[in-house]
Amino acid sequence: MSKPNVLIVGAGGVGTMAALSLTLNNKSNVTLVVRSDYDHVMKHGYSIDSAHYGQYKHFKPANIARSVQEANDKMGPFDFIVLTTKNIPDGPITCEEVIKPAVSPGTAILLIQNGIGIEVPMIEAFPQNVILSGVTLIGSFIINGHVENSHFDSLYIGKFDNKNIANYDEIADAKIAEFQSIYQNENPKINSVQKDDDVRKTRWDKLVYNSVFNTTTTIVNLDVNRCQINNANELLFRPAMDELILIANSDGVEVDPKTKDKFLHIGDGLFYSPSMLVDLRKHQLFELEVILGNPLKIAKKNGVSTPILQTLYTLLSMILFRMKEEKGLITVNKEDYKNKNSDDYPEIFHRSCLY
Amino acid sequence: MSKPNVLIVGAGGVGTMAALSLTLNNKSNVTLVVRSDYDHVMKHGYSIDSAHYGQYKHFKPANIARSVQEANDKMGPFDFIVLTTKNIPDGPITCEEVIKPAVSPGTAILLIQNGIGIEVPMIEAFPQNVILSGVTLIGSFIINGHVENSHFDSLYIGKFDNKNIANYDEIADAKIAEFQSIYQNENPKINSVQKDDDVRKTRWDKLVYNSVFNTTTTIVNLDVNRCQINNANELLFRPAMDELILIANSDGVEVDPKTKDKFLHIGDGLFYSPSMLVDLRKHQLFELEVILGNPLKIAKKNGVSTPILQTLYTLLSMILFRMKEEKGLITVNKEDYKNKNSDDYPEIFHRSCLY
Repeated sequence: MSKPNVLIVGAGGVGTMAALSLTLNNKSNVTLVVRSDYDHVMKHGYSIDSAHYGQYKHFKPANIARSVQEANDKMGPFDFIVLTTKNIPDGPITCEEVIKPAVSPGTAILLIQNGIGIEVPMIEAFPQNVILSGVTLIGSFIINGHVENSHFDSLYIGKFDNKNIANYDEIADAKIAEFQSIYQNENPKINSVQKDDDVRKTRWDKLVYNSVFNTTTTIVNLDVNRCQINNANELLFRPAMDELILIANSDGVEVDPKTKDKFLHIGDGLFYSPSMLVDLRKHQLFELEVILGNPLKIAKKNGVSTPILQTLYTLLSMILFRMKEEKGLITVNKEDYKNKNSDDYPEIFHRSCLY
Repeated sequence: MSKPNVLIVGAGGVGTMAALSLTLNNKSNVTLVVRSDYDHVMKHGYSIDSAHYGQYKHFKPANIARSVQEANDKMGPFDFIVLTTKNIPDGPITCEEVIKPAVSPGTAILLIQNGIGIEVPMIEAFPQNVILSGVTLIGSFIINGHVENSHFDSLYIGKFDNKNIANYDEIADAKIAEFQSIYQNENPKINSVQKDDDVRKTRWDKLVYNSVFNTTTTIVNLDVNRCQINNANELLFRPAMDELILIANSDGVEVDPKTKDKFLHIGDGLFYSPSMLVDLRKHQLFELEVILGNPLKIAKKNGVSTPILQTLYTLLSMILFRMKEEKGLITVNKEDYKNKNSDDYPEIFHRSCLY
């Protein structure tokens, strides 16, 4: 039996480490899509400094492609697509559009991405493909072709619900087991792949953190600990988490009562910035919809009151609007709004008073 | 009878125009405190371009002082102190500290400033002085010694409550009438000074606008109209105004039901930035406490639920914290927080997962 054919889309900290892990195990045929860094990586490979995988000066996976289309033309069809990009459905291109050229009838799609509801457009686009959930704890990042990975590579894989496919559970479980077998190193100190039997709960649990910490720190452009010095734990984080947990409950997921306090103190003594804040500081669009937009849609559907989270979401959507305008992705034509005026308002409330 | 002696503190757009108005009427003796621009103003005066007062190339009030202390030493005691600075009780120096050197037993203090509760520390500091409220609609600003004033100078003066002084109403009303007489131009097309018989209502009404528009636009660094393009009127402004009006009600002030819609559409077709946003963009501390902090204290005292306004306040207090740290006004010593750690948390929620 030939080795499974794996395509990794998203050559960031998570994607490059997945490429390294699969390559070292040598139980699959790996192709990595590298867009902006293509020439540099073809020439020099990646330098990697990993606490558990070791040091590599010029790491290259077996195959590198400039695009998903090129990858498919040269190496397809694929048994697995591992998607490790950010997930921004309101950005210039959706995840579904990105991977479409390489999705074949037998391809399982593993989403190692944040958020809730990310499987919905994916299943809609590829109703007959197995869609898997990956939650990674690897904590790695890449700068100019150099990858830093300080933490143990611990990956949780489970299946999203999909009612389109007959015998879905068996087929999906077999795919999970197959990916575990090609990703798990023989030495359990190198990495760990575990089956996640309750994907929705795992993702809601993580969202108790992400929906509150990533969002707030991004709005104020301040790391988690500086927010906490300002008593954000009690003034904002805890009541916002309460709202998020009520949404999870309305979606049929219970959250351990200890989860809030665990997250509120998980970074005590550290001064660190969540990924959304890092994106803001790099002037990159961030993952608002999958982190907060989708939970709020569920809240609305189920009648859950969320004044705080709705406020955070509205503020972030306006910050994204500003960033998109700065990037030239949208244009505001003031003439379109000129027909409106307020000259009929009483003088006491005339615009001049609006200082 | 000699002319009343008037000190103006705050040589911004409002303060310089007040100096011009009083000087043109020639019914008072005007001293203006000019700090950073002193040398320039002493040499060149102000250039002023005003729609109703006219154009002036080298306007100087009768007296200019470098500081409040110097003003008092040379020109005191004063019948009136007109305070037109920003009001930032949590800033490096309070308004009370600023004017203290020039407050004499007979001085009436006129606060032409935004916000609610600004009279409380003022009455505490000067319990035997008359404290007046000024709400101006002048809409003027100053850049490098040049003043632009596009709107009619309409000033509303009233008295704050003060139970310390016997016959307070008569004394305060006499002061209001006196200031009206020295400020009101003989030509009613030049300016207008009207008595404000309900200071608290006037200020709560204006706060329906300021507490919501100034705050939100500052948080997202986007002008009012771009926020409204993102449907902020319905998603955020209107529900936040509802909270503010409930606080006003709890403080005994009714707000006209039309006020919300009036403000929500007062800037239709314009693209303009409230003063707090202008301050943010200039990297200047802004007036959070008098605009939002004081209303929230009243809400807390009266048991009014304010999840949205509390969220806006907490976010802005953290943005102010960031600005103060950037300015060197506060320092974060990370070592102070090092004793805390979270190593006892389960690995699945280890910090590495906090992307």
